[in-house]
Amino acid sequence: MSRPETDARHMAHALRLAARGLGNVWPNPAVGCVLVREGRVVGRGWTQPGGRPHAERMALDMAGAAARGATAYVTLEPCAHHGRTPPCAEALVAAGVGRVVSAMTDPDARVSGRGHAILRAAGIEVTEGVAEPAARALQAGFLSRVLRGRPLVTLKLATSFDGRIAMPDGESRWITGPAARAHVHLLRARHDAVMVGGGTARADLPQMNVRGIRTPRQPVRVVLSRQSLPALAPEGPDHGPLWQVAGPLPEVLAQLGQRGITRLFCEGGGAVAAGLLRANLVDELVGYTAGVVLGCEARPATGRLDWPDLATATRFRLVETRALGGDVIHRWRRIED
Amino acid sequence: MSRPETDARHMAHALRLAARGLGNVWPNPAVGCVLVREGRVVGRGWTQPGGRPHAERMALDMAGAAARGATAYVTLEPCAHHGRTPPCAEALVAAGVGRVVSAMTDPDARVSGRGHAILRAAGIEVTEGVAEPAARALQAGFLSRVLRGRPLVTLKLATSFDGRIAMPDGESRWITGPAARAHVHLLRARHDAVMVGGGTARADLPQMNVRGIRTPRQPVRVVLSRQSLPALAPEGPDHGPLWQVAGPLPEVLAQLGQRGITRLFCEGGGAVAAGLLRANLVDELVGYTAGVVLGCEARPATGRLDWPDLATATRFRLVETRALGGDVIHRWRRIED
Repeated sequence: MSRPETDARHMAHALRLAARGLGNVWPNPAVGCVLVREGRVVGRGWTQPGGRPHAERMALDMAGAAARGATAYVTLEPCAHHGRTPPCAEALVAAGVGRVVSAMTDPDARVSGRGHAILRAAGIEVTEGVAEPAARALQAGFLSRVLRGRPLVTLKLATSFDGRIAMPDGESRWITGPAARAHVHLLRARHDAVMVGGGTARADLPQMNVRGIRTPRQPVRVVLSRQSLPALAPEGPDHGPLWQVAGPLPEVLAQLGQRGITRLFCEGGGAVAAGLLRANLVDELVGYTAGVVLGCEARPATGRLDWPDLATATRFRLVETRALGGDVIHRWRRIED
Repeated sequence: MSRPETDARHMAHALRLAARGLGNVWPNPAVGCVLVREGRVVGRGWTQPGGRPHAERMALDMAGAAARGATAYVTLEPCAHHGRTPPCAEALVAAGVGRVVSAMTDPDARVSGRGHAILRAAGIEVTEGVAEPAARALQAGFLSRVLRGRPLVTLKLATSFDGRIAMPDGESRWITGPAARAHVHLLRARHDAVMVGGGTARADLPQMNVRGIRTPRQPVRVVLSRQSLPALAPEGPDHGPLWQVAGPLPEVLAQLGQRGITRLFCEGGGAVAAGLLRANLVDELVGYTAGVVLGCEARPATGRLDWPDLATATRFRLVETRALGGDVIHRWRRIED
């Protein structure tokens, strides 16, 4: 196998490890690290819940003396700033790794090339940009927080074939099947926070937590409402912090970004969905479509959008579609202008 | 290869040939026939446009003297009644085939086992029921006409992510992309007739024909309306017959069945869709979903359905979902009670 092929294979491994951190490492990025010596993996790490230890620290600890002379594959440039722990770039130097392969530069102003520079200054060979598109996709939330000052926003709509989320009287249990509903918990687990509007909070008293699968950290529960909220479950092992927010959506998202949220999962209701769509703030759409038609009198998936015409409406690019139990799941990403 | 395996393989071939006739052989069934002698295919046939010649006749003519001693694979019991041409069962006997493998009995009262009996009376070995579920699925339209007295009904809805078929002012070109629109023409070609409501006929002056792909027979254009229609294109090489129908939907469908239609493709508008769904007359749903959200003020996919509750609404089973250009296509079949 050629060196680029080997690099790509180990980086793919590191990216799979990195994905384990999605939703539970905010405000930090979810990073993966694989240490390879003489073709053998001697260390594996990923950002731990809460953001520490970093992936490199975990992999170096696993490798011990075997890190000497190894190649380190990291999905993001090693950090260069002294925070609660010494920077990972220095830890890699201290461990004596022979080469570092990184997928992308860390856009954080405290790193931004300094991590790679520390390594090179120590005489370590550095290869950058391996599997960069995949790494950027995985880091979309962290990149959004750092570069746009707001989290990546995923909007979920679970609807009938004709786009309805409930019967006229509000009955909505269940339009989609158990596999789709379980998948929603998986997506909650991979996001830092779950957001609903005040109407949904008052009408449904939603749990907004991850159930049925293990997660190291429950997502923050964000309720968008000026009015007082009903008694939702207190923060605890089964429920994340409860944050009430209000104001124009761009400002709300900026606040969430400042508080460290990188990936926000929006579950409704229709007014919040419409507000996000109108302001062009939805990055990803996730649809669950059931094989039932509910009719024009049933409740619509969103409020008014007031597009001037069809060409003005925001378009999304299909990422994936497949059967999920008896329903269809389809995922889309906003087409950037 | 064992004999059941060989039989299954040749029957699958015959079924692929049969599918060529879908949409252009009504009121006849779309049948396929393969003649195999000493492991070699010596004749292939499928029901020709308009329903004649039959598949067996075509395959026998291709095989000539090679039919003697061959095994005939037919997707439907050979016909036994004297119509415009002698029955296929007698033609197979006259050609001296040694064995007949058939997928299913013809439910037509004029056949209904008599075809198989003619063959057996002539000393020919007959194996029935090979690949019967696949043959029944292919013949769903013909079976519907014979057994339920009405065509198989497919309802198509091309919508936005939130189930809308047009902007508030009626603008609908285009919600879905070119691949989805081309696929609609493929589905029209595989149906005997295309139906729209009077409102759609007046508002859109739809062509209701197959464009962009070759078809031996344009579908019948059915417009459901009591009122007079606008000037639609006259029947000709590019447009099928134009039938105006009216009355309660079950009676309309019975009329279409009596006139020979086995597969009906319904393209809207919302009132026709709602009428068919309310009366539980939709056998298959085909959805095209685009990556754009149009909002609650945009036009809904169907009219009122007035289900008493969620459990009452007709459920459909997912048959297929996949990406189609930039859109999602999803196909469903009604779950029979």
